[in-house]
Amino acid sequence: MLRELVFAPVAKELEEVERRIHTRVLSRADLISEVTTYVLGSGGKRVRPALLLLSARMCGYNAGERDVDLAVVAEYMHVATLIHDDIIDNAQKRRGHPSANARWGPHVSVLAGDFLYSHSIQRLVSDGDFRILKAFADATVAMTEGEILELKWHRNPDILYQDYITIITCKTAALFSAACRTGALVAGVDETRVEALTEFGLNLGIGFQLVDDALDLVASEEVLGKPVGNDLLEGKVTYPLIHVFHHDRGAERDEVCRLIGNGPLREVEVETIRRYVTEGGGVKAAVEEARKYLRKAQEHLAPFPDNAARRSLEMLVHFIVEREW
Amino acid sequence: MLRELVFAPVAKELEEVERRIHTRVLSRADLISEVTTYVLGSGGKRVRPALLLLSARMCGYNAGERDVDLAVVAEYMHVATLIHDDIIDNAQKRRGHPSANARWGPHVSVLAGDFLYSHSIQRLVSDGDFRILKAFADATVAMTEGEILELKWHRNPDILYQDYITIITCKTAALFSAACRTGALVAGVDETRVEALTEFGLNLGIGFQLVDDALDLVASEEVLGKPVGNDLLEGKVTYPLIHVFHHDRGAERDEVCRLIGNGPLREVEVETIRRYVTEGGGVKAAVEEARKYLRKAQEHLAPFPDNAARRSLEMLVHFIVEREW
Repeated sequence: MLRELVFAPVAKELEEVERRIHTRVLSRADLISEVTTYVLGSGGKRVRPALLLLSARMCGYNAGERDVDLAVVAEYMHVATLIHDDIIDNAQKRRGHPSANARWGPHVSVLAGDFLYSHSIQRLVSDGDFRILKAFADATVAMTEGEILELKWHRNPDILYQDYITIITCKTAALFSAACRTGALVAGVDETRVEALTEFGLNLGIGFQLVDDALDLVASEEVLGKPVGNDLLEGKVTYPLIHVFHHDRGAERDEVCRLIGNGPLREVEVETIRRYVTEGGGVKAAVEEARKYLRKAQEHLAPFPDNAARRSLEMLVHFIVEREW
Repeated sequence: MLRELVFAPVAKELEEVERRIHTRVLSRADLISEVTTYVLGSGGKRVRPALLLLSARMCGYNAGERDVDLAVVAEYMHVATLIHDDIIDNAQKRRGHPSANARWGPHVSVLAGDFLYSHSIQRLVSDGDFRILKAFADATVAMTEGEILELKWHRNPDILYQDYITIITCKTAALFSAACRTGALVAGVDETRVEALTEFGLNLGIGFQLVDDALDLVASEEVLGKPVGNDLLEGKVTYPLIHVFHHDRGAERDEVCRLIGNGPLREVEVETIRRYVTEGGGVKAAVEEARKYLRKAQEHLAPFPDNAARRSLEMLVHFIVEREW
């Protein structure tokens, strides 16, 4: 499998991450352990842990202890935001399983997310590096801001390119960037390389999310694990649609704007919008835009030695944009 | 006023805390600033900031900079949990004003709480003391666990003394304790005194919450700023009721258990339970129990010099238990 190929240089460490993630997160409150174990165990590509591990490895880190601990934290932080996201979107499913929100209700979900987040901070405090703590604290503030901006633009077709890019930078790229930066910090490389990996993660994250949002409009439910056009159903206006709106001033545009503003959309309306976007070249434009960011990501790998981990990160950049087109 | 008398030695610092709390918490997302400014500005006794400031002052700290910064963080952390609590309890009012949950909905409230919490961590990272970070991280984990335990025992009359004490220790005393500990750490006193203030805050917090929960059953709405018997309405079984259940095995007990288990309670039922608890000596027992913890708190002040801040903390201990009986 593709994932196994790309993540091969840190396969052993990722297995260890997985093992630790499946170990109950101990808490005085049994219900917390139950919820977090359920959510952490119900799949996920573990992209953030892999980025952290590959970054550390590319920078020469080889001890395999702190990096694994911190990779677990990166996944905890990600999952904490997923749990809260599902409350915000009132999502019933997550990765093909009932969401924590659907299974235990919003009350328990709020607390399970809070617990995972504050428990992550405890672990970072034990790890004892202020620069790493700062990287993750900054990323979590950004993720919250990204979510709020997304709410602000909910069902609003007037959203501009820059608003959308800010949202995905905050929501996705900030944590990708923190994971890569942490890999560099654990390995103890110089400031230039720490910054290079921070930028690599940021650009990779933006490219990744652009592609993910484009896929939402064209891939099948089988590929996505969630219904096609799910973002539209949730009132999210993403790059492909923004692009077409920007170039079309006709009657069809007005109609699509009206549908989105009125939401929630019916299935047939989602289909209409999907066709409008793909025929208007929106998906193609989004992929082009993603390529720009991914090229920048690639450039930030230049200062690093040519080793297996670096080749993995390059493959990752490559496969993100090639995956479905 | 009582509050002014007790907090007099740190009045200037508390004013500065208030000023900073009313300054907008800057964020890329305007809505976050709006919500956090609203919630932070809608009252509150600022007990946690005052505890931190008085502890620091009692220990000889006099610079008035770091203590104020950290006192603001203590209030942010407290308010973050209030915002999430209101989602959990589906509360419409908070301190006499519409809650953030009522005004903006649970989606925005989840994120506003997340933002305040992660922004607090950012500030603690800039402050740069791992022991303080650990104190607050441990307190927030405890607060989350306390909330979950409270949910677990929702409308359950079988809850025991120890479960209840664990809940209030986690929910209230942990942050009181972290605030006092932080005061000692900022002042740079020796480990014995740091531990003494940690224990002082813990016992004070348990005593405070015992009294607060007892007041809920006897004080008027005017005093409380929320309806009498509010805990019962929210399905919370507190010390006074646990005490009466423990000593009464009669038919009236069965009837009250049935009412609580069935909830939500009607006004007339709340009144029945209130009478049952007070006539059964539950409130008196809760106050006695509170006195035990407050005596312990008092004892932990022994290692400190006799100064204005210490006398304030002693007054605080005294007034907590004397306030309404």
